[in-house]
Amino acid sequence: MATDVEKTAEELDQLSISPFGPARATVNENPLSEDEVQKMTDFFHATMYLCLGMIYLKENPLLREPLQLSQLKRRLLGHWGSDAGQSFTYIHMNRLIKKYDLDAIFISGPGHGAPAVLANSYLEGVYSEVYPDKSEDVDGMRRFFKQFSFPGGIGSHATPETPGSLHEGGELGYAISHAFGTVFDHPDLISLTMVGDGEAETGPLATSWHSTKFLNPITDGAVLPVLHLNGYKINNPTLLSRISHKELEALFVGYGWTPYFVEGSDLPTMHQAMASTMERCILEIKGYQKKARESGKAFRPRWPMIVLRTPKGWTGPRKIGDHFLEGFWRSHQVPIPDVVAHKEKLKTLEDWMRSYHPEKLFDESGALIPELKALTPTGIRRMSANPVANGGVLRRKLHVPDFREYATEVKKSGVSSAGSMLLFAKFLRDVVRDNPQHFRVFGPDETESNKLAAVYDAGKKVWLGDYFEEDVDGGNLAYEGRVMEILSEHTIEGWLEGYILSGRHGILNSYEPFIHIIDSMVGQHCKWLEKCLEVEWRVKVASLNILLTATVWRQDHNGFTHQDPGFLDVVANKSPEVVRIYLPPDANCLLSVANHCLRSSNYVNVIVADKQDHLQFLNMEQAIAHCTKGAGIWDWASNDQGDEPDLIMASCGDVSTHEALAATALLRQHLPELKIRFVNVVDLFKLIPQFEHPHGLSDREFRALFTDDKPCIFNFHSYPWLIHRLTYRRKGQHNLHVRGYKEKGNINTPLELAIRNQTDRFSLAMDAIDRLPNLGNKGAAAREALLDEQIKAANYAHHEGIDPEELTKWQWPF
Amino acid sequence: MATDVEKTAEELDQLSISPFGPARATVNENPLSEDEVQKMTDFFHATMYLCLGMIYLKENPLLREPLQLSQLKRRLLGHWGSDAGQSFTYIHMNRLIKKYDLDAIFISGPGHGAPAVLANSYLEGVYSEVYPDKSEDVDGMRRFFKQFSFPGGIGSHATPETPGSLHEGGELGYAISHAFGTVFDHPDLISLTMVGDGEAETGPLATSWHSTKFLNPITDGAVLPVLHLNGYKINNPTLLSRISHKELEALFVGYGWTPYFVEGSDLPTMHQAMASTMERCILEIKGYQKKARESGKAFRPRWPMIVLRTPKGWTGPRKIGDHFLEGFWRSHQVPIPDVVAHKEKLKTLEDWMRSYHPEKLFDESGALIPELKALTPTGIRRMSANPVANGGVLRRKLHVPDFREYATEVKKSGVSSAGSMLLFAKFLRDVVRDNPQHFRVFGPDETESNKLAAVYDAGKKVWLGDYFEEDVDGGNLAYEGRVMEILSEHTIEGWLEGYILSGRHGILNSYEPFIHIIDSMVGQHCKWLEKCLEVEWRVKVASLNILLTATVWRQDHNGFTHQDPGFLDVVANKSPEVVRIYLPPDANCLLSVANHCLRSSNYVNVIVADKQDHLQFLNMEQAIAHCTKGAGIWDWASNDQGDEPDLIMASCGDVSTHEALAATALLRQHLPELKIRFVNVVDLFKLIPQFEHPHGLSDREFRALFTDDKPCIFNFHSYPWLIHRLTYRRKGQHNLHVRGYKEKGNINTPLELAIRNQTDRFSLAMDAIDRLPNLGNKGAAAREALLDEQIKAANYAHHEGIDPEELTKWQWPF
Repeated sequence: MATDVEKTAEELDQLSISPFGPARATVNENPLSEDEVQKMTDFFHATMYLCLGMIYLKENPLLREPLQLSQLKRRLLGHWGSDAGQSFTYIHMNRLIKKYDLDAIFISGPGHGAPAVLANSYLEGVYSEVYPDKSEDVDGMRRFFKQFSFPGGIGSHATPETPGSLHEGGELGYAISHAFGTVFDHPDLISLTMVGDGEAETGPLATSWHSTKFLNPITDGAVLPVLHLNGYKINNPTLLSRISHKELEALFVGYGWTPYFVEGSDLPTMHQAMASTMERCILEIKGYQKKARESGKAFRPRWPMIVLRTPKGWTGPRKIGDHFLEGFWRSHQVPIPDVVAHKEKLKTLEDWMRSYHPEKLFDESGALIPELKALTPTGIRRMSANPVANGGVLRRKLHVPDFREYATEVKKSGVSSAGSMLLFAKFLRDVVRDNPQHFRVFGPDETESNKLAAVYDAGKKVWLGDYFEEDVDGGNLAYEGRVMEILSEHTIEGWLEGYILSGRHGILNSYEPFIHIIDSMVGQHCKWLEKCLEVEWRVKVASLNILLTATVWRQDHNGFTHQDPGFLDVVANKSPEVVRIYLPPDANCLLSVANHCLRSSNYVNVIVADKQDHLQFLNMEQAIAHCTKGAGIWDWASNDQGDEPDLIMASCGDVSTHEALAATALLRQHLPELKIRFVNVVDLFKLIPQFEHPHGLSDREFRALFTDDKPCIFNFHSYPWLIHRLTYRRKGQHNLHVRGYKEKGNINTPLELAIRNQTDRFSLAMDAIDRLPNLGNKGAAAREALLDEQIKAANYAHHEGIDPEELTKWQWPF
Repeated sequence: MATDVEKTAEELDQLSISPFGPARATVNENPLSEDEVQKMTDFFHATMYLCLGMIYLKENPLLREPLQLSQLKRRLLGHWGSDAGQSFTYIHMNRLIKKYDLDAIFISGPGHGAPAVLANSYLEGVYSEVYPDKSEDVDGMRRFFKQFSFPGGIGSHATPETPGSLHEGGELGYAISHAFGTVFDHPDLISLTMVGDGEAETGPLATSWHSTKFLNPITDGAVLPVLHLNGYKINNPTLLSRISHKELEALFVGYGWTPYFVEGSDLPTMHQAMASTMERCILEIKGYQKKARESGKAFRPRWPMIVLRTPKGWTGPRKIGDHFLEGFWRSHQVPIPDVVAHKEKLKTLEDWMRSYHPEKLFDESGALIPELKALTPTGIRRMSANPVANGGVLRRKLHVPDFREYATEVKKSGVSSAGSMLLFAKFLRDVVRDNPQHFRVFGPDETESNKLAAVYDAGKKVWLGDYFEEDVDGGNLAYEGRVMEILSEHTIEGWLEGYILSGRHGILNSYEPFIHIIDSMVGQHCKWLEKCLEVEWRVKVASLNILLTATVWRQDHNGFTHQDPGFLDVVANKSPEVVRIYLPPDANCLLSVANHCLRSSNYVNVIVADKQDHLQFLNMEQAIAHCTKGAGIWDWASNDQGDEPDLIMASCGDVSTHEALAATALLRQHLPELKIRFVNVVDLFKLIPQFEHPHGLSDREFRALFTDDKPCIFNFHSYPWLIHRLTYRRKGQHNLHVRGYKEKGNINTPLELAIRNQTDRFSLAMDAIDRLPNLGNKGAAAREALLDEQIKAANYAHHEGIDPEELTKWQWPF
């Protein structure tokens, strides 16, 4: 393509940053005929008309009679501000999809941008195919309008109900990371991604621009971001619209992109500018991909992106009364909110809507006229019909090797140690190996620290940055890899969500304390999954698997900031239909649980397991049986066989189980006549009644484990009250004495930390005695002895900086 | 200063990005004499020696005898990787503090960078002043070494125990936003801020560079960031160390800074480069401030920053055996971890430590020799002694106007409506007005949407970006303002934390659903506050006040993504010493609660209040009495006077109270003989026993409200199980039937949403009847009637898109 009209950076820096006026653009080649410009303008106006219709009308959709107040919705809701820029972009992509037969999806980042997407989906016919009652005629349009932001209807974000959407945009910040997730291992896909300039201020979005350093032009597709400099957020200007051209351009060059600018409000010239710029971008993308694929040599290009500066509320009136509307934040939401109270404003609205000339755009039946319909692609080339955005359709089976082959041998329970995570790593390595194009591992620079380095044998870390000499010394970097690591929990979570939502599989590993960083993201994903269950054409996607390790109980030198097991509380608040929490007590249980999670669909699975060496309890057969039940009595650790127990010692979590078991041993040594039942819980939601969660135990099953009336010491991995919250409906809940982390810690050995939170073996055993007053003097003597042992051990730890050997090398003595 | 040796961007782009070799720098003017270079090198070596000592030694601190295995700590913990670069920077700032009498603090962003900070604090004498047993002699040094990363000792982050720290760096991402918080309204302060290149990948850090757009050079101080291109994270290279010079420079120009580069490993040239570059930066900062202050005209300069590229683990051995150490990620933590198992490595360690020549750096007593001590500033000019970092010392009284003057008149309870937030906004406005230099309001572009726009009358939104013509139309922007708005919850929270920790006051307002974005940040701040309570020299700071509005129950068009009241669960997990949660039911209660929170110290106060108009219940006198108790019976809404009630109707939260009250009215209309007690809870922690939280009610007090045995319908603002978790120890807890949000919603009117979650008046009344079987047929008839009313109302809402007038205009009928 010719470049004679390109502007230099210096020239661009001189340009006014007003969004108004004729187009100013990096590339401006007038590729469109006048007829094309007219048709694109008409199509664009049709979408703008539909956007206003959605916000305002419940009757008279094509204004075939004078607009009456009674035809307006009684409560006006919806957002106008970003619709025009988004629709403009969508329409220009349609032209290139048709010209180059592109495989593309549209990701709508700006909040409340759904009207633009819905309008285009409706006009390209997809909406009516998916929802036949929203047909392409007057009645269908009426229903299409009324349902928008109407009770029982659809929202103003690109919710799961929206064909072609896999990114809702309700919470802002994830458009780019989601988009990259969709194109990894989809070499032909282009994800056209609108980024709102409000959204661009969020932290997650600000760092996600770096995603290009992880994109391989041979095996992956491409993201074409359109940063929409809409100028305003709800009530504020946006940062990026109020800095100089030089800074703006430098910022994206710095992020590793080639920014192309398209700026202005004059439609004919804007069409030419956008058409030529977007085409340039697509050809650059294709060129880079061709170069890499033909040479077989990957590299990191400065991928193209577009900065689209248009007025907020573009094509609306510049002023309503004394107030600015177009090009100001007042156009963010319902553009004329007081249309009911001020009769003259009803006229303003009607005139405005008629200025788009619906009578010319839609035929007698109410359908888009054929000349305009011809602008849309067909079949699954229509962005709102692309199956990538309904990823379950494309989901390939995950090949999971037989997890039993990775078992650790356990001849006797509680005597030998192994590293659960090291064993799991081998299993995970082979999952990576067996699914070379549709499974990835994600982590924030912690995969090796989390003892999962074995996965690098099957797939190294993707790295398109520069390489240094020392990288050969265990750097494990490669252009083509299967492990994705950046020190941004937001980015890896966004990538993984995008990867899964577009039909693939994956797992994220993280230190337990810092998973709170993405509380909100995970919550939003849960909400997406839950709502998808109500949308019948959505096909289930793979589960989002989160493996938490480096847990609260092993933060010897990281201290208080690294002690927070509360992510479970956040997850437990989400819909029971979509969340699962597992705390496997040992390696074989971890394998069994992980196997189950990887094969599941439509859940958020959270697995908590420590990465240090631990006692092993169950052989593989026992582990499978135990994990299948989710909670059960460990007969080998109990001595109440055939009797009612005096006490139940229960545990959930690996470190917690270790101490609860040691406490049981202490009690049986000190008080051999005591009948103790040992219960372990793997699947946390077993504790909740079955009518509140599909995994819940019936009351009868719960009673069979915990009894109705015996004291139970429950040692829990996380904050203790979560157990009370899950069991408050149980008859025996008053007998549960739960220990867990209660925000007590600093630089402590594992023993010291446990003592501070009363989750150590001594405290648990003393707790039990305190709940068994019938033991009398015997109990008091045992308690005293236990206290002595505890103090002695704590003193040793305090002076030596490590826990006593007899604790760390402890074995189950029976 | 001369600029003849400055390099152009093009030249810099050609430079290798290896961190090794002679210094390469933007400014390189050899300002230091040879003697100065030698002394700074010696001082630097002294700090490096101390860092190794902290990681390894418990005895023989100055290696006055050959190093023995028994003198090592038994468990080696601590981090070496970023220490050198941080200490190098600290030392160079010392030179300029002395030369220009600067008021400066040091913020250590890189994780686990404490050894560098501790070493400098020790050498400048502050550590020994604060902790006299860590004296400046051999014994003190031994104790100083041993306590590091040792049980009961101090951590490897810049924890509250660290003099001069107000930023722990345990969780990464907040260095820059904290730093800006410290310099707002501190015009003379320079916060020298090390940013790790790992940390720089996080979202929160990536967007916080934009903070300069909110910094006024007249009224605020300056942040001097030093991006430490250390090259590696735990096990990965960092992104910013593996991109071209051109991209790196462009990135920071794009963010609005002037980046100065200092790169290399050769100490003499590096000293010259750092000395001249840092001095240039300080002079530029002073120059911009002078220009703005003398002209009285604020502007946004491209503030200077430094990119410091040095090898990770700088000054350590490049290789240990076959493995790279210096300049590789293997130097991240304990640099030679297997020194115990491999005897020859003990020798390597000893040789390395001796290479710093401790015998020349410390005198016979073990103190730093005077020639080197002379390099440190004195008194509070020592960065680790700056009172800003112990902000409670500087905390000025907050002037809070008499909140009673903002009361809304309530002649009769439950009949008139008012906007709680609008009234509160006037109070907040006057707090802003009365504290023009030490109180700010923070929000993510929601202050106006949250109906707090009145504050702009006292202080506009700070904005140093460009201005447009339409800004006069309600833009409320100013160079000098008191409201801080950027669409990044992370950034505003970081600013507010920094502002408070350096001795000032503030409040953050946010939509309720998106406060989860900063779950982790708030958790870290709670941990900081809690740990400060254990550090006796720390003086209490103002509370962090978080006002949540746009709550779950009023998301008519935002839908499911905006429905999440679960932040309360996250906060409730933190130490009871530092967290407080309030849900005022009406405007006067909101005023009373807010007054209390603003005057408090060392808490995280969370206030939840809706922003729409609501029924008002209590006049100011009643509100004060009610909020002081925190929970109480509303006699005017009860008819059990003098009797035992048949039923308790309880509520917590404004919308929840409204519906619970309406349910009470329905019950009394349908079943007039029923004795109902109405209880409202403002202070959530009243529900917990008093031995678990200082606000907790005694069992007797709890019983006086809720009884031990009567059914209680409890309508709660948030997820219902939080109430069960708080009350599980209460005798009457089995009688509590709690309703709240349970993750059911979409685009719904308030009534529909309430019905879906069974928190509407009809459901609550039916719940009550279901728990009162003695009502017999009368109860069944009333229940049937209520169900009919509910269905009728829901149908109306569904068809009309708004709730029926009789519900929205409802008044307490008795």
